[in-house]
Amino acid sequence: MRELLLIGIGTGNPRHLTQEAIDAIHHADVVLLPHKGRGKSELAQVRLGILQTLGIAPEKLAHFDMPLRRQTGDDYGQQVQEWHAAIARRWADTLAAHTAATPGAAAPHRVALLVWGDPALYDSTLRIAALLGLAPAQVRVVPGITAMQVLCSAHGIALNDVGAPFQVTTGRQLVEGGWPAGVDTLIVMLDGQRAYEQVTEPEADIFWGAYLGMPQQLLMSGPLQAVKPHISAERARAREQHGWIMDIYLLRRPRTTPPGDAAD
Amino acid sequence: MRELLLIGIGTGNPRHLTQEAIDAIHHADVVLLPHKGRGKSELAQVRLGILQTLGIAPEKLAHFDMPLRRQTGDDYGQQVQEWHAAIARRWADTLAAHTAATPGAAAPHRVALLVWGDPALYDSTLRIAALLGLAPAQVRVVPGITAMQVLCSAHGIALNDVGAPFQVTTGRQLVEGGWPAGVDTLIVMLDGQRAYEQVTEPEADIFWGAYLGMPQQLLMSGPLQAVKPHISAERARAREQHGWIMDIYLLRRPRTTPPGDAAD
Repeated sequence: MRELLLIGIGTGNPRHLTQEAIDAIHHADVVLLPHKGRGKSELAQVRLGILQTLGIAPEKLAHFDMPLRRQTGDDYGQQVQEWHAAIARRWADTLAAHTAATPGAAAPHRVALLVWGDPALYDSTLRIAALLGLAPAQVRVVPGITAMQVLCSAHGIALNDVGAPFQVTTGRQLVEGGWPAGVDTLIVMLDGQRAYEQVTEPEADIFWGAYLGMPQQLLMSGPLQAVKPHISAERARAREQHGWIMDIYLLRRPRTTPPGDAAD
Repeated sequence: MRELLLIGIGTGNPRHLTQEAIDAIHHADVVLLPHKGRGKSELAQVRLGILQTLGIAPEKLAHFDMPLRRQTGDDYGQQVQEWHAAIARRWADTLAAHTAATPGAAAPHRVALLVWGDPALYDSTLRIAALLGLAPAQVRVVPGITAMQVLCSAHGIALNDVGAPFQVTTGRQLVEGGWPAGVDTLIVMLDGQRAYEQVTEPEADIFWGAYLGMPQQLLMSGPLQAVKPHISAERARAREQHGWIMDIYLLRRPRTTPPGDAAD
């Protein structure tokens, strides 16, 4: 392999793809396509749909099943390291099998992986790629539209208040650390545990979205304390209906920091 | 005006445009094009170049000069409000003049503004649009690739550590508040005052980029304390050469927070 292309594809709407991403997908000899078990087959279908729309030949696709992370023990860091190593091996094995199964094919020079959102944001593909022993110049990252951008766009809101900071965090961090000091806007990702239910800020607003950019997109917003039970009910209903859910939300409380520079 | 389209165009590389952004630009009757005085004419040229590449007719373009913000007095919030109101009036006047100057033209139904990066991030266009009295459904935001994504892509780094939070802030906030507690990765935007020079964290790394996505793109990275004088020298040289600079950087210190959930 001479080049590994990590391509951000946005949140599932093919129209989120940039020109650069489209060119990179066409440029690849092989596209590695992960499958994550029955519950998430809809997600694999979205990726496949994007590739079909772009006219990528099925022979270019190398499908593989994602290894599972060991979830026993309290050695979380070690579990993640083992898991990443297993994924890197799976990529290599899948590429070797794909080459062997294609009569007369040489090993691919340019391999692409399609990443939800942007490869830099809460995604491990870059860290897994680092295990392959490629030189930095051989790994190319193509930015993609992230869920937090689609969330703000869908709600028609700005991410930050004028010149004010914001923090991007996870459900686990929010539960364990509470609302961080010095910042009034939070974006919460990876929140399977519904951390917003435990946030007691009386005047905070929430802007929530699920399946962003997809036909089944859901949006809810309003004062956090009033809206949170409705979000939890809707979330449970949608998860039951689709078998999976990806959601994200923005929390904003009245400003506690001094005004900063206006942009532009 | 029936619809106002706020279209994120990325950081100056036409290949950052999404399909959605391209469609929205074509969909508009008129594109409002701001000019910000001599020093920033290169930026106006980049926008114009994107429109020409897309084959947008010059008659569709309504050029206007950006009002200046009053910079006297310590009523910063008031200055920003006055400035936003002046920009909203300028938009309306420019559209009226454009209609009057076009024989037989009706007032435009769909008006577009091209926004650097993403309209949700450190940009006031949404707040100015709110002064026009349009209904929320009449304002459509199209997300664009942000400078922080292009920065990470160019350096080949992940934005966040595994499951860890990060904060996006401004130079002013960093100088006034110092490195925020509980977060080890910072993205600093709008830093005309070189706040990184005042950061004393001994083990922090910096990943800096200027003119991201453009042919004149500059990158520097390394241990903050060793690299910061070189960045300041390069920054001054480039600003002198081009007459303007837009830059951004990521600061990361060794992890002080517990590990969180791995994504994906």
